[in-house]
Amino acid sequence: MIIQQPSLDWVFKPAWPLDRHAETAAAQHQQQLTKPIGALGELEVIAQRFAAWQGRADPRLEQIAVRVFAADHGVCAKAVSAYPQEVTAQMIGNFLRGGAAISVLARQLGADLQVCNMGTVTPPPDLPGLKNCAIAPGTRDFTEQAAMAHAELVRALRAGADAVPEGIQLFVGGEMGIGNTTTAAALVSALLDLPPDMTVGPGTGVDAAGLVRKRRVVESALALHGEAISAAESPALKALETIGGFEIAALAGAYIRCGQRGIGVLVDGYISTAAALCAVRINPQVRDWLMFGHVSSEPAHRLVLKHLGALPLLDLRLRLGEGSGAALAVPLLRAALDLHNNMASFATAGVAGRE
Amino acid sequence: MIIQQPSLDWVFKPAWPLDRHAETAAAQHQQQLTKPIGALGELEVIAQRFAAWQGRADPRLEQIAVRVFAADHGVCAKAVSAYPQEVTAQMIGNFLRGGAAISVLARQLGADLQVCNMGTVTPPPDLPGLKNCAIAPGTRDFTEQAAMAHAELVRALRAGADAVPEGIQLFVGGEMGIGNTTTAAALVSALLDLPPDMTVGPGTGVDAAGLVRKRRVVESALALHGEAISAAESPALKALETIGGFEIAALAGAYIRCGQRGIGVLVDGYISTAAALCAVRINPQVRDWLMFGHVSSEPAHRLVLKHLGALPLLDLRLRLGEGSGAALAVPLLRAALDLHNNMASFATAGVAGRE
Repeated sequence: MIIQQPSLDWVFKPAWPLDRHAETAAAQHQQQLTKPIGALGELEVIAQRFAAWQGRADPRLEQIAVRVFAADHGVCAKAVSAYPQEVTAQMIGNFLRGGAAISVLARQLGADLQVCNMGTVTPPPDLPGLKNCAIAPGTRDFTEQAAMAHAELVRALRAGADAVPEGIQLFVGGEMGIGNTTTAAALVSALLDLPPDMTVGPGTGVDAAGLVRKRRVVESALALHGEAISAAESPALKALETIGGFEIAALAGAYIRCGQRGIGVLVDGYISTAAALCAVRINPQVRDWLMFGHVSSEPAHRLVLKHLGALPLLDLRLRLGEGSGAALAVPLLRAALDLHNNMASFATAGVAGRE
Repeated sequence: MIIQQPSLDWVFKPAWPLDRHAETAAAQHQQQLTKPIGALGELEVIAQRFAAWQGRADPRLEQIAVRVFAADHGVCAKAVSAYPQEVTAQMIGNFLRGGAAISVLARQLGADLQVCNMGTVTPPPDLPGLKNCAIAPGTRDFTEQAAMAHAELVRALRAGADAVPEGIQLFVGGEMGIGNTTTAAALVSALLDLPPDMTVGPGTGVDAAGLVRKRRVVESALALHGEAISAAESPALKALETIGGFEIAALAGAYIRCGQRGIGVLVDGYISTAAALCAVRINPQVRDWLMFGHVSSEPAHRLVLKHLGALPLLDLRLRLGEGSGAALAVPLLRAALDLHNNMASFATAGVAGRE
């Protein structure tokens, strides 16, 4: 009997190609609608992108899956968060009982919400809607050693990919993990070669001393792992392995799988965008399948979005995670498609065009 | 028999006061919800303002009225628009037949849509949902004379006020009028003392020569009416009378009435915001009852919003009018209240707070 090594080959497989023909047809359709050319701004870009995703000039947005990945971070030993680590598992319960922000928003959208436990310090309650993918009770402290073993990274990426259901028109990923703005900052510093004072922010609300600690922690990560990351064949994979976290790797895996399956993604906040950065560095074509829901009040989020050439839809000083900022932008996508598919043309409405 | 002069006294009557007690109760409630303090950013501000509007810590948003005011502008004689004036009346038909952007969006929101014909060059089709308040077949050319007579201003303001229904929780005003970005620019230049090159933009899409014409037209307006506006007891009323238009005066009247009735308003784009500026200059307390849906791609919109201390919810390069940008932001208001009213507290969810 041969035991196969778990493999990462799948992450490099090409993304589904955009349908440029359908995109052009959608753009031409928009020229006929009863509005000045381009007057619906970003909404017209959205409808064109959905056309390119779905291969039809009249794209739809009905089935939405929200998947929240939760995990703990060893770096919390360095006091980088205002909240105790137990909150990660407690919030899993809150997601599933319907009391968290993402629960309320998913319900409002009629979206299917599932939570994936990627590994927490305390066990989460066993409730319907919880998928147990726990890899370890949190990552190891990345200021002292690699956050995870290579085999753990392989499992985390794969768990994310496996959480993407078939037959959906939009994937929204969320995350929960006390300490994970620090992890995201270290990833962004490592991959974009930015100093910690540009990538570290207050997260859930640490004080000035906490901010100093977070920056030092990111400096330590760069000192300990920076060289190995730069030297690796895939620096993004190495960064995920050495820095973490399980939920960020799962998100990256989910985004890559969405690209490969031809499923559009609406990315959430700073941590999800750090995962998107990893996904795009691993498999650049995946970028075509990502839209960005919002820019958060975590200062470095804007930098990463800019690096990805992303125009976030909302800017409402959100800093909650869970997928909430992406979920809040979904009605704009639906409105964009509703307008695209249901407005009258100049000809049918009997309205004169430009002189 | 005594024939009463139509009076404007009503516009100066005080706005309904905000309920600061309910606002504080809402803010305290937010501290208990399972999220870091302030993590929902602008959405928390929205829920607090709705509480202050409705006098309850758990405000609701069910009944929404959309009123689109349409009118023509005499200044179109100076070739300030890319579209012929007939489009104003034709678009009234499109609004009512359900083919315009605002028709699609109002339907999606479950909002009640009515169109008020304030006076067009060609007669609009007589369809259900049309309220005929026509004052004249468009205003007069404000580069040559006052856009309207004082009695016409009185009627336009009142028609706007009378279009505000009882029993609603949000008022969305829209406008349609070929040429009305030029009128709005002249109003803003006059009231904020800004030169035409800061207030004039491409509107529905005039070319460079059209932009020069629009600026000259605004200069003429300031030269002809500027002194009378500055010298008037209410410069905003004088600006509406001399520059117009009927639909902008109606919007201002509607906003003032909303403030007086205690009905919250979501303001749309550049033209609606010019009307809001007039309303607030006429009756400053009305400002408390205005939220702003978006900042459009018309460059001066940002300036007027800043002057009003307004934080627009969306920034999507929209430039359509009709109330469409405000309608697009309504789901954010609903999400804000849904989160406010339906998230679990730390205590009920068994989630630990800050350390």
